[in-house]
Amino acid sequence: MAADPLLLREDGADGVTVLTLNRPAARNSLSLQMLETLENAFAAIGEDASVRCVVLAANGPVFSAGHDLKEITAHRADPDGGRAFYDRAMETCARVMLAITALPQPVIAAVQGVATAAGCQLVATCDLAVASDHARFATPGVDIGLFCSTPAVPLARAVPRKAAMEMLLTGEMIGAAEAHRIGLVNRVVPAGEVMASAMALARHIASRSALTVRLGKRAFYAQVEKPLAEAYREAACVMTENLMARDAAEGIGAFVEKRKPVWEDR
Amino acid sequence: MAADPLLLREDGADGVTVLTLNRPAARNSLSLQMLETLENAFAAIGEDASVRCVVLAANGPVFSAGHDLKEITAHRADPDGGRAFYDRAMETCARVMLAITALPQPVIAAVQGVATAAGCQLVATCDLAVASDHARFATPGVDIGLFCSTPAVPLARAVPRKAAMEMLLTGEMIGAAEAHRIGLVNRVVPAGEVMASAMALARHIASRSALTVRLGKRAFYAQVEKPLAEAYREAACVMTENLMARDAAEGIGAFVEKRKPVWEDR
Amino acid sequence: MAADPLLLREDGADGVTVLTLNRPAARNSLSLQMLETLENAFAAIGEDASVRCVVLAANGPVFSAGHDLKEITAHRADPDGGRAFYDRAMETCARVMLAITALPQPVIAAVQGVATAAGCQLVATCDLAVASDHARFATPGVDIGLFCSTPAVPLARAVPRKAAMEMLLTGEMIGAAEAHRIGLVNRVVPAGEVMASAMALARHIASRSALTVRLGKRAFYAQVEKPLAEAYREAACVMTENLMARDAAEGIGAFVEKRKPVWEDR
Repeated sequence: MAADPLLLREDGADGVTVLTLNRPAARNSLSLQMLETLENAFAAIGEDASVRCVVLAANGPVFSAGHDLKEITAHRADPDGGRAFYDRAMETCARVMLAITALPQPVIAAVQGVATAAGCQLVATCDLAVASDHARFATPGVDIGLFCSTPAVPLARAVPRKAAMEMLLTGEMIGAAEAHRIGLVNRVVPAGEVMASAMALARHIASRSALTVRLGKRAFYAQVEKPLAEAYREAACVMTENLMARDAAEGIGAFVEKRKPVWEDR
Repeated sequence: MAADPLLLREDGADGVTVLTLNRPAARNSLSLQMLETLENAFAAIGEDASVRCVVLAANGPVFSAGHDLKEITAHRADPDGGRAFYDRAMETCARVMLAITALPQPVIAAVQGVATAAGCQLVATCDLAVASDHARFATPGVDIGLFCSTPAVPLARAVPRKAAMEMLLTGEMIGAAEAHRIGLVNRVVPAGEVMASAMALARHIASRSALTVRLGKRAFYAQVEKPLAEAYREAACVMTENLMARDAAEGIGAFVEKRKPVWEDR
Repeated sequence: MAADPLLLREDGADGVTVLTLNRPAARNSLSLQMLETLENAFAAIGEDASVRCVVLAANGPVFSAGHDLKEITAHRADPDGGRAFYDRAMETCARVMLAITALPQPVIAAVQGVATAAGCQLVATCDLAVASDHARFATPGVDIGLFCSTPAVPLARAVPRKAAMEMLLTGEMIGAAEAHRIGLVNRVVPAGEVMASAMALARHIASRSALTVRLGKRAFYAQVEKPLAEAYREAACVMTENLMARDAAEGIGAFVEKRKPVWEDR
């Protein structure tokens, strides 16, 4: 019998692709193999024009518990004490996160359960996040002697600085309402409605011009790191590029003529 | 009969100047002419020492609907398909926004109605914003094939990243309470009290030392883009410069002597 | 009789050191001597491996009223009008704030009363802050002709931009609930429970691996100022360094084996 795949991919006719972390018995932990599978999946999606929006979900009660601690412990027996493996795992993890931000399509986390450490990092990294009111979040590395320094990267960019520091220094769980209050998730819905809510949001985005969404997402992350004047210079160029595209002509024309636009560019 | 002016300017004896977008029939959209009028108005105010604070308001039910889509559509017939016009419109828009941030005087948005796209960008750009509880905000360019990439510049600096992304990717309206929750506006007041509230805030600021406010606003936007140590180095210099000024001597002296200060420097 | 010390230091057996501003009759204002005393205290703590977490508290009804305005006024009589003194005071103040951020141990502000100007800056600078529900916060320099340009540095990094601007431009007091809403403090507790709450938080952090907390705090402030890819590059290196340390082996091992870890590295 073949092993269950670590990651399930389901492509909808509506342009929404669902990626589902499928290692529930291991709390969807991010083993090196899981990270490489995610990296490959995002690479494939990035080149697949039929995908307009991605939902990142998980099977089981845990969204993701972060790095696979058993795997990490096993590699302490390596001749180098694990260093080469740790370097590889951490670099692969960073590449997965950067791939989500660089992906042309928006990625929505659908968080049904507990998201901790690099699992919480995944949520912070996604463009948007929908959470069950049962979902909980933590960066508890400090409890096991391994500070969540890489989860801190997107966390510190998603939530206020002292809120990030509290999660990182205490390792304590926060509930979905608090995660919403600080900006870690966009929407909190009743348990059982997470997928429906994330899918509705994804379909809404998928129904828009792919070119427009792609230009916009890329411009957003490019400008947000720049000084203000430079950010405006770059964003103004993107606006003209966007305006010259067929889909903007169609979209603005449809709006002025009060008709429904038909998108074409991919 | 002369056409109504696009922008009204009213200078109060209290040092508060009100600029009112006055193209209500066109939803106060930011045609190139409106943008150039705003640019000229801010240039004039920046050199006018009698102005201590600016309120940016609008006539009609809409604060501003952003760029003028009819004008944009008309320029598609240009020999270059509109490119030169779009470049000019986007660059002018960026200059207006940068002028608000660079203006010596604080600018308070008084948002009585709907602020969308570059209209929402104006609100995000102003130093402070007061909104009616009927006001609503959106960056709906994605609905018409034109992602709000320039509105994203000040939006991403005013609100948490995922909140900005949700507005940009969904195009959906948010109410005044949500705009307050995420930090897009400072205060929400009952409809009909927006101007009174914005004016009270403006008069409060206008009653302070103009030099002090000018130094402080400039230092704020300069330091916020710098690494921490550099930010402190620059801000510490500004503090000494401020301390050596006559108004600080007067203000601190008045505080120590428990009397009312009399400001002089402009 | 010797004068009361400006700053009290109490080292607990649990690794928590309490620093208490002890100039209540002068509203714990930050005279040059107080700033130098703080600087020396943090320098000593930074080299003291027995300290795992710091609580910064204050005696009297005021947490700190910021710079000592009587001292500032007195130096106007200096031959240079005070410039050299102001330079020295502002640079020392900036060094104290940078020392808190650079300190290996986390620093928790325990705010029992009013924190204004550079006193509010102290709160914004600390890694975490617990406030009494009676605590209030303001950056009121604008009222006395001296804009809070240096307090703005950590304030603008702790709270949303428009919230910072409102405090800076109006000088108005905000209550503890509003300070929590905008992210200036982490927790609000009933008056009288501030020290107990801050101490509980500090003991929780002090019970973790000192090496882990030190690596994590340093990496946090380093990465948060970097572009995303560079932030990940640096943070990934820190993760490997952390993983190779004895305390991570112990912590992860203990977690996998479901036992309590024993920290060793300092």
